[in-house]
Amino acid sequence: MLINCVAYQNGRKLADIPVEDISEYVCRPDCFVWVALAEPTPEEIDQMADEFSLHQLAVEDARKGHQRPKIEEYEDSLFAALHTVEADESDGSLAVGEVDIFVGTNYILSVRHRTQKGFAEVRARTEREPELLSHGAGFVFYALMDTVVDRYFPVLDGLETELETIEEQIFVKNTARSNIESLYALKQKLVVLKHAVDPLMDATGKLYGGRIPQVCAGMEAYFRDVYDHLHRINATIERIREMLTTAIQVNLGMISLAENEVTKKLAAWAAIIAVPTMVAGIYGMNFENMPELRWVYGYPLAVLTMLVGDIGLYLHFKRVKWL
Amino acid sequence: MLINCVAYQNGRKLADIPVEDISEYVCRPDCFVWVALAEPTPEEIDQMADEFSLHQLAVEDARKGHQRPKIEEYEDSLFAALHTVEADESDGSLAVGEVDIFVGTNYILSVRHRTQKGFAEVRARTEREPELLSHGAGFVFYALMDTVVDRYFPVLDGLETELETIEEQIFVKNTARSNIESLYALKQKLVVLKHAVDPLMDATGKLYGGRIPQVCAGMEAYFRDVYDHLHRINATIERIREMLTTAIQVNLGMISLAENEVTKKLAAWAAIIAVPTMVAGIYGMNFENMPELRWVYGYPLAVLTMLVGDIGLYLHFKRVKWL
Amino acid sequence: MLINCVAYQNGRKLADIPVEDISEYVCRPDCFVWVALAEPTPEEIDQMADEFSLHQLAVEDARKGHQRPKIEEYEDSLFAALHTVEADESDGSLAVGEVDIFVGTNYILSVRHRTQKGFAEVRARTEREPELLSHGAGFVFYALMDTVVDRYFPVLDGLETELETIEEQIFVKNTARSNIESLYALKQKLVVLKHAVDPLMDATGKLYGGRIPQVCAGMEAYFRDVYDHLHRINATIERIREMLTTAIQVNLGMISLAENEVTKKLAAWAAIIAVPTMVAGIYGMNFENMPELRWVYGYPLAVLTMLVGDIGLYLHFKRVKWL
Amino acid sequence: MLINCVAYQNGRKLADIPVEDISEYVCRPDCFVWVALAEPTPEEIDQMADEFSLHQLAVEDARKGHQRPKIEEYEDSLFAALHTVEADESDGSLAVGEVDIFVGTNYILSVRHRTQKGFAEVRARTEREPELLSHGAGFVFYALMDTVVDRYFPVLDGLETELETIEEQIFVKNTARSNIESLYALKQKLVVLKHAVDPLMDATGKLYGGRIPQVCAGMEAYFRDVYDHLHRINATIERIREMLTTAIQVNLGMISLAENEVTKKLAAWAAIIAVPTMVAGIYGMNFENMPELRWVYGYPLAVLTMLVGDIGLYLHFKRVKWL
Amino acid sequence: MLINCVAYQNGRKLADIPVEDISEYVCRPDCFVWVALAEPTPEEIDQMADEFSLHQLAVEDARKGHQRPKIEEYEDSLFAALHTVEADESDGSLAVGEVDIFVGTNYILSVRHRTQKGFAEVRARTEREPELLSHGAGFVFYALMDTVVDRYFPVLDGLETELETIEEQIFVKNTARSNIESLYALKQKLVVLKHAVDPLMDATGKLYGGRIPQVCAGMEAYFRDVYDHLHRINATIERIREMLTTAIQVNLGMISLAENEVTKKLAAWAAIIAVPTMVAGIYGMNFENMPELRWVYGYPLAVLTMLVGDIGLYLHFKRVKWL
Repeated sequence: MLINCVAYQNGRKLADIPVEDISEYVCRPDCFVWVALAEPTPEEIDQMADEFSLHQLAVEDARKGHQRPKIEEYEDSLFAALHTVEADESDGSLAVGEVDIFVGTNYILSVRHRTQKGFAEVRARTEREPELLSHGAGFVFYALMDTVVDRYFPVLDGLETELETIEEQIFVKNTARSNIESLYALKQKLVVLKHAVDPLMDATGKLYGGRIPQVCAGMEAYFRDVYDHLHRINATIERIREMLTTAIQVNLGMISLAENEVTKKLAAWAAIIAVPTMVAGIYGMNFENMPELRWVYGYPLAVLTMLVGDIGLYLHFKRVKWL
Repeated sequence: MLINCVAYQNGRKLADIPVEDISEYVCRPDCFVWVALAEPTPEEIDQMADEFSLHQLAVEDARKGHQRPKIEEYEDSLFAALHTVEADESDGSLAVGEVDIFVGTNYILSVRHRTQKGFAEVRARTEREPELLSHGAGFVFYALMDTVVDRYFPVLDGLETELETIEEQIFVKNTARSNIESLYALKQKLVVLKHAVDPLMDATGKLYGGRIPQVCAGMEAYFRDVYDHLHRINATIERIREMLTTAIQVNLGMISLAENEVTKKLAAWAAIIAVPTMVAGIYGMNFENMPELRWVYGYPLAVLTMLVGDIGLYLHFKRVKWL
Repeated sequence: MLINCVAYQNGRKLADIPVEDISEYVCRPDCFVWVALAEPTPEEIDQMADEFSLHQLAVEDARKGHQRPKIEEYEDSLFAALHTVEADESDGSLAVGEVDIFVGTNYILSVRHRTQKGFAEVRARTEREPELLSHGAGFVFYALMDTVVDRYFPVLDGLETELETIEEQIFVKNTARSNIESLYALKQKLVVLKHAVDPLMDATGKLYGGRIPQVCAGMEAYFRDVYDHLHRINATIERIREMLTTAIQVNLGMISLAENEVTKKLAAWAAIIAVPTMVAGIYGMNFENMPELRWVYGYPLAVLTMLVGDIGLYLHFKRVKWL
Repeated sequence: MLINCVAYQNGRKLADIPVEDISEYVCRPDCFVWVALAEPTPEEIDQMADEFSLHQLAVEDARKGHQRPKIEEYEDSLFAALHTVEADESDGSLAVGEVDIFVGTNYILSVRHRTQKGFAEVRARTEREPELLSHGAGFVFYALMDTVVDRYFPVLDGLETELETIEEQIFVKNTARSNIESLYALKQKLVVLKHAVDPLMDATGKLYGGRIPQVCAGMEAYFRDVYDHLHRINATIERIREMLTTAIQVNLGMISLAENEVTKKLAAWAAIIAVPTMVAGIYGMNFENMPELRWVYGYPLAVLTMLVGDIGLYLHFKRVKWL
Repeated sequence: MLINCVAYQNGRKLADIPVEDISEYVCRPDCFVWVALAEPTPEEIDQMADEFSLHQLAVEDARKGHQRPKIEEYEDSLFAALHTVEADESDGSLAVGEVDIFVGTNYILSVRHRTQKGFAEVRARTEREPELLSHGAGFVFYALMDTVVDRYFPVLDGLETELETIEEQIFVKNTARSNIESLYALKQKLVVLKHAVDPLMDATGKLYGGRIPQVCAGMEAYFRDVYDHLHRINATIERIREMLTTAIQVNLGMISLAENEVTKKLAAWAAIIAVPTMVAGIYGMNFENMPELRWVYGYPLAVLTMLVGDIGLYLHFKRVKWL
């Protein structure tokens, strides 16, 4: 589905143009064309490939989707595959989408797959800053990457909040089962985010250090900024991951501690019930010659013995914290 | 066993040729010969070594099989050993085979060991694209590698499905034993796939970056594509591996939780049985002076006491979730 | 909030200057201006950006705060973001603040966020050493970094002391729960400190090896010293981390050992109570023909049997350390 | 102990020569001398050091033995220390020996320590291939390394077999103790093999890539082959190691599962015994007014109640797999 | 405290010289001065700094002590901080000391902190080898490093012996608690040694490869030897560490196995006691119509039933290894 197809000149919007005219505008040296597709049909992609003369391998990647995040150079153009990660507000589950971006000297084509949010705001914002937009396709490429990466932060904050929620629960009794499920669910989300960020960080590093692709020339500080954000996200992911690993181990310890406590309680109550049972058993023996049986206060004394024994045990178990 | 032995000229099939003529066609500058062997006898390999003048060490590797995946340069030719990984459809177990490929300026020889699927489709597809096939042996080499690597994807998808199946089971009660067995089996398969992919990724990296072997010249974008697939597979393997490790720990926690629950149940029922036993014991004592024994409603009262005690306990244990 | 705004010439304080004059002094080749802000308003930062002509991206970072530790080069100036880590004396919790430093050929601007301690002492000390201060902004930059890094040491010492306290407790009985909580809390603090130190170490390494930024030229030995301190902190963090991991595992072992001991005690006392109960049960049977029941010493003998059995059991369990 | 001392010319054996003549033959440009020592006395080593003019530090290493595997260059000669790993056929334990090799332009000296198998077969095989032997000392060096490395394979196969044996046992009940012992023993052996292979792999990598020592010139493909074998061994070691780690965790899970089962059995049988005991207790009470006691079928009915209760429990526990 | 202050010429001792003359001797091109301090006062260090014109940062490091192991270049001099590790013979605990070494073209100054053993033997040995000592300060530097590193070996051997002792105990019953304590203590020592060795290995690597500091020129083979020893120590540390990690896990498994055995024993004896209790309970019922009660052999038969039941159970539990 075509979202936008606009030509720009000197940082200002020239016109919405029909798709068939793209190849014409791309040839003008002072113009650049910015096209946005979402959930495209194969035919739309083929048409774009024709208009922009895209490299066949990159086009195939965009058609198939499900690429790992990467930035690849094809002669003087770039092909970038970015993962979007969106948290479902109702249940916090993460949805991974994909944005494929083709960047040339004077064109930029973005293709969204399986994403909720579009990039209309990016277009609006950059159109308000003509001096920046006049940098051309490279700047738009930066603006798109920056937006994708900035959208990781609320997701990451959500994961940090989840970890904190679990940390508050982890030493509370009788929460082990829900904690362990939450820890595993958090781990799953963390791995999803990590696998969006990790390869992108590697790729972005090549846009500001060493030999820089032509279309990004002069934008190094901007791409370093994106890299820096990715690095920060990555460091936080690692921190959560490390705490998660420890939390899982600690949770295991808490489960074992809980087992200890149940066993202690079981033992204590077993003793408290067993003592009167034993006493009762003794006075239930049928020996003819058991003088206590004939005492007037034999029975109350026996019951008293039971009570005293049990109260003693109870206090003892309370003191050693088995109860 | 000889599968095919064909000479090509300018990207088009010239003829099926007899093995003895190979050395003759290899000398023609505009021709290349593509030979496919499967489960070859030592004699067949020796004959090929003669016809193509293969390097002795590479020939020995191909004869012995059981190489680790690798790509080695011998002067102006390449020797590649690739692992095929095929999932048995009945029980999901993985079978590892091997494809050894010798590539020279104008020949390509593939030798299959212990594989189910051949490469007839690769030959058919490349023959339909003469403009690509005219790149010569390097393109065929790419096509073979690409096919081997693409065949890892369904295997990997199978492993991901297995992981998801286990993840659905892992917090279900009484599945710990089967989960632990499934996790171990999955780990075994993962390691098998990883050891096919890992060394190949290292080797493929050398075919598109840095000094590129002569026979792969001009094909960098294609080999980068293969590398990219391997990288994606590897990232997924790592993701599964990380989740597996966590899942094994979580499973251990679930086992301990299950133990806790059994102990709690044991404790609760023990108490419920012990209380009437104790009461019965007391009224089984033989004291002469036990007035309750003579009450008309002594017995029903005793039984009532037992019932009330047990119902109280039962409700208590239900409330604290021990039952 | 503006803390200080001072111009220096040849290593000596020239004058406190008003903010509006900064741009004037910065232009004098033999002068440099050292400004300190704390919890600045956006307006203050904008004013500084104007006076010093700071790079827009760096200014945005300083305005937003919450940067990861880093040192970035913008043409001939540097932007450094450092984390301060301060231990709360009452409960030992760690508070992370931030110091952003802009360094140019003849200016230095420090911006503190969320920190308790300022850098007045640094200014006082460097003003007492004019020969060093005459190195200019680069030396002040070193002095600030050195101070931030040196303030990590007491925090680190606190963590080491915590670890030692736990290590003294870890093999003591009935401390498992508090140990596990302490271990987790220590891990949390360690991760906080690590994430202040780790990225800074990478960044500092670039100030004394390889291509050195202009403003740090001639100060290599000093920055290597800072790096060395960071490296030492990092090595200690790693050491604590490794011991922590082991301690958590050992703690788990201690919990299981404690469980073993409870189970043994439970078993031993259960046996000691069960034996007289069994004997009593036997002599509570109602067979008409049980000669012992009619013996004069039947009852004492039965009780004696119980006692002897229990004393024997008790000594046995003492001997095998179940009690 | 001197094993052999032979001079070769143009790849053919010239003569067994006395030790004193070595220095003379070494000076002839077209000759090379190959000496083999086993468990040498210090005097023998000193004599060799004199005859071959060996570097003092290398000689000291050979005299002391117990070197880590390494290959060191001393001007135009090489000193290699290799570990041999031999499996004791009776109990599978591993014995580590050492082979120190001195290689110069026209000499090779091997010194065996604590090894069972010698290298007589290497000498015999190379003497049968004069065209290869004419490469001189470098080829002999390759042949010795190749032999040492090839002898790791059967050891490694043994470890793989051990792992498979354990894997077959690991989910079998009541094998946890023997499995854990086997896993630990396997780990010990694995570490031994790993520490023979790891450093050697690093060292061998320098014999075919980058600046190649003079004595190995022209033999790159051969040393790459050795490296390749080491790499394969290493990959297998890593694979076993990874499975071992998982197996140890799985084993821990199996132990906990076994505990669960014992607890369940205990609980089930406790219930089955406790129910009739409780019923018997009730009808053992001495209330005067217990009508059931006087029923003719009171006793059989009580026993029936017990039986029905127990059969019900038994079936229930069977159904929930506690029995 | 000044230990020695000696001037050497051409590898031979010239004279013990007073501290004030040091600066004079240092200027003579063919002389070098070797000074040894132990637990110096700040004044002694200041005096040395003056006499040798040491770099201020290095002097501060030596004054403060507690440096991490490192080797730093200051123009044409070196500053090395080494850790000594000494095992207390009575309880095996490790004491970490420090040796700071300043090396210049013609001086060497060693400063010992918190060490038991000095370096008198090094001085004595090197004085006996004038041809080596004539290499000057660089050789003395090597000799000191070599001695510090060689003294790690007995410490390491001690740790290996400790590991072996634990390994012999680890599968023995009832040793889990002492094993776990020993494992933790060993881990603590290992970490201490590791943190002495690790940074030194990095630093030493720079003394024989790449750009070599002037004072070490021509001594590459010697420093490579030191590096090699450090590498060997490090490999052994890693090996012990890996086995330790496994041993801790195995120990946890053994603890759980012990728990299983206690539970089994508990269950078995509980059954053996419960069966006669149940039988006795049945014959303790007060039904009027219980014919067995009136049988002459009722009582012996009941007791027989109990005995037969228990013997059967006992044999059963013996057979399944619960007892």
